[in-house]
Amino acid sequence: MSTLVQEKVGQAIGILQETGIDLWLTFVRETSAGGDPVLPLIYGEGDLTWQSALILTRSGERIAIVGRFDAEAARATGAYPTVIPYDQSCKPELLRVLDRLAPAQIALNYSQNDVLADGLGHGLYQVLDRYLDDSVYSECTLSAEQVIALLRGRKTPAEVDRIRAAVDTTRQIYERTFDYVQPGMTEIEIGRFMQAQLQEFGVGPAWHLDHCPTVNAGPDSPIGHVGQTSHQVARGQLLHFDFGVRQDSYCSDIQRVMYFLAPGEHTPPSPVQRGFDTVVRAVRDAVGAMRPGVLGKEVDAVARGVITNAGYPEFRYATGHQLGRLAHDGAGILGPEWERYGDTPNRPLEAGQVYTVEPGLMVEGYGYVGLEEDVVVTETGAEFLGDPQLKLILR
Amino acid sequence: MSTLVQEKVGQAIGILQETGIDLWLTFVRETSAGGDPVLPLIYGEGDLTWQSALILTRSGERIAIVGRFDAEAARATGAYPTVIPYDQSCKPELLRVLDRLAPAQIALNYSQNDVLADGLGHGLYQVLDRYLDDSVYSECTLSAEQVIALLRGRKTPAEVDRIRAAVDTTRQIYERTFDYVQPGMTEIEIGRFMQAQLQEFGVGPAWHLDHCPTVNAGPDSPIGHVGQTSHQVARGQLLHFDFGVRQDSYCSDIQRVMYFLAPGEHTPPSPVQRGFDTVVRAVRDAVGAMRPGVLGKEVDAVARGVITNAGYPEFRYATGHQLGRLAHDGAGILGPEWERYGDTPNRPLEAGQVYTVEPGLMVEGYGYVGLEEDVVVTETGAEFLGDPQLKLILR
Repeated sequence: MSTLVQEKVGQAIGILQETGIDLWLTFVRETSAGGDPVLPLIYGEGDLTWQSALILTRSGERIAIVGRFDAEAARATGAYPTVIPYDQSCKPELLRVLDRLAPAQIALNYSQNDVLADGLGHGLYQVLDRYLDDSVYSECTLSAEQVIALLRGRKTPAEVDRIRAAVDTTRQIYERTFDYVQPGMTEIEIGRFMQAQLQEFGVGPAWHLDHCPTVNAGPDSPIGHVGQTSHQVARGQLLHFDFGVRQDSYCSDIQRVMYFLAPGEHTPPSPVQRGFDTVVRAVRDAVGAMRPGVLGKEVDAVARGVITNAGYPEFRYATGHQLGRLAHDGAGILGPEWERYGDTPNRPLEAGQVYTVEPGLMVEGYGYVGLEEDVVVTETGAEFLGDPQLKLILR
Repeated sequence: MSTLVQEKVGQAIGILQETGIDLWLTFVRETSAGGDPVLPLIYGEGDLTWQSALILTRSGERIAIVGRFDAEAARATGAYPTVIPYDQSCKPELLRVLDRLAPAQIALNYSQNDVLADGLGHGLYQVLDRYLDDSVYSECTLSAEQVIALLRGRKTPAEVDRIRAAVDTTRQIYERTFDYVQPGMTEIEIGRFMQAQLQEFGVGPAWHLDHCPTVNAGPDSPIGHVGQTSHQVARGQLLHFDFGVRQDSYCSDIQRVMYFLAPGEHTPPSPVQRGFDTVVRAVRDAVGAMRPGVLGKEVDAVARGVITNAGYPEFRYATGHQLGRLAHDGAGILGPEWERYGDTPNRPLEAGQVYTVEPGLMVEGYGYVGLEEDVVVTETGAEFLGDPQLKLILR
């Protein structure tokens, strides 16, 4: 049985053939200091210490040029039939391999648009540029962002299954949390409860534990990537969560919202219900618009339009991002063409990609309504990976 | 009381004054995907999501330009009195700040030599370069590697204390391990025992758990950054360990060696004893040569010379590296001028720096002898952070 790394390396060779790129060079060093985010896909969890070159070609070659002490581990991946160890400098071996393969294009692991395809530090790029300086290859390099985006984005069925399992664990933790919370509890207490569930389920947080979960009690809690505060759950206010787990190396990312009825209330006040219904509609319409070939910005415009057409200010972030090994799994997003998003809103959706859909709005005086669902793009549309929230949870 | 981040940011301003650099700009994005290794020093453990600029100046300014949703967390660090949030693009705010400060030099977070100063991806560098393109600042940029190396290298007394504590935990785990191992045990069993100790002491591994510890039983076990194998401890052979812990965010990195007497032996065979004594001498002489102002390559030459003068082949790695938040803590090393080490062997030692010293050699037929000690450079020399191994541990 092939491992996930072997599968993804095989998939990468297909993507090189499809995109007509002769050679993809992933150049790294001392990856224990952080490393290139593409390495878990094409190399696995191990570290590469000295300057290392992972080379995949359109013709199917899979070559690792690594420091001598990493050679054994590189062979053990089973993904690189050719492992070339070196002692002092990787330059001669690298040039020898390139001379044999004579690629017309060399895609490198950097990207202006996609942080997850930008693992090549600028300093290390300068080193590589110097190695290639006196060769014919210095003019052949380009960004591998397209290759990496396709590879990361197109989840295999085994990858989608892992995300689905993470979503289900998240649902279970949310259900326990909805039963647990009471008026008067602080965000911090609630966060502690949810993090204890992570331990109980034997899973990690999908992002930094500082703000996983984010919990927002009422209208004065700071929104965003912020830790829990001492704001308390109160009757007559909203309670909003943003939470995900990392299970078996794959993530979920889900937002939920509750309302605590004020004394005498039997239903939420109409501004709260209207805000909630608007966000549900924004999610539904955005997911309804998703199918292969549609651009990320088109899906974003649908969700954004539902919010603004209902008279709310537009949310100041993207409608969604890809989800996979990381909560923010890079490449194309469901977002507007704002400068900070670079070219990422202009990518077509593809079958196998998994996205979050997470519009939101503030209900003045009550709190924040944000819902976030995880969906997989299919050949004909998109499917929720777990049941979406359609009703306001009342307590 | 100031936090470590506040202390290090203050130290950075002093380093800018000392090096005559007007402004240090750390430019990052989506740091949850890996991030810049300098961030734990100058920002802490939190993430920065959108493109973010941390600006420190010779005149003492400390400015963070961050996405709106990160502004609260940036303020909470207490290290940046000026936090400038933005919604769509950081470019206008960045240019406004630069125009006000009018720096003659802008040191950026990239480095050819030092992976821990090379957090700026080449793609993100291109983005920044484009932002600065039509300004007077595009010609002012340089590598911040010197600033980062000085900042990371010069441990405050509080930082040295943390490393000393990690070294002491490592000693305790080694002592339990020496009592535990028996002939016939596999490297894998021994590794499992040591990793269970990590849990018991409530600390993490200093590097990837795959090969922390490395355990080498006898002469046929693969040397290097390799996981434990099914090689067994045997009488008449050496057993070598490379292990470290991460405690309170700071690391140790220690190698130890044992010999299992063959039936009838009361002392190790002379090739084993001679190999061990040679490595002890190499450590002692190298540490004896360490003091502020000496170059890393000069210390390396001392250790390397002891090994080769005794007739052994030279080891194919550097004598030592810096130690701190990471087991390989970047910047200058105690190493030879080999191409893969770039300029790092040419740096002068400074008081407050912490290095490993780890020469080694193979004793044919018996196994690998490698010792690794952790030492801090003082005003007048260098001090072991824990007792070095001077005698072969016999069983």
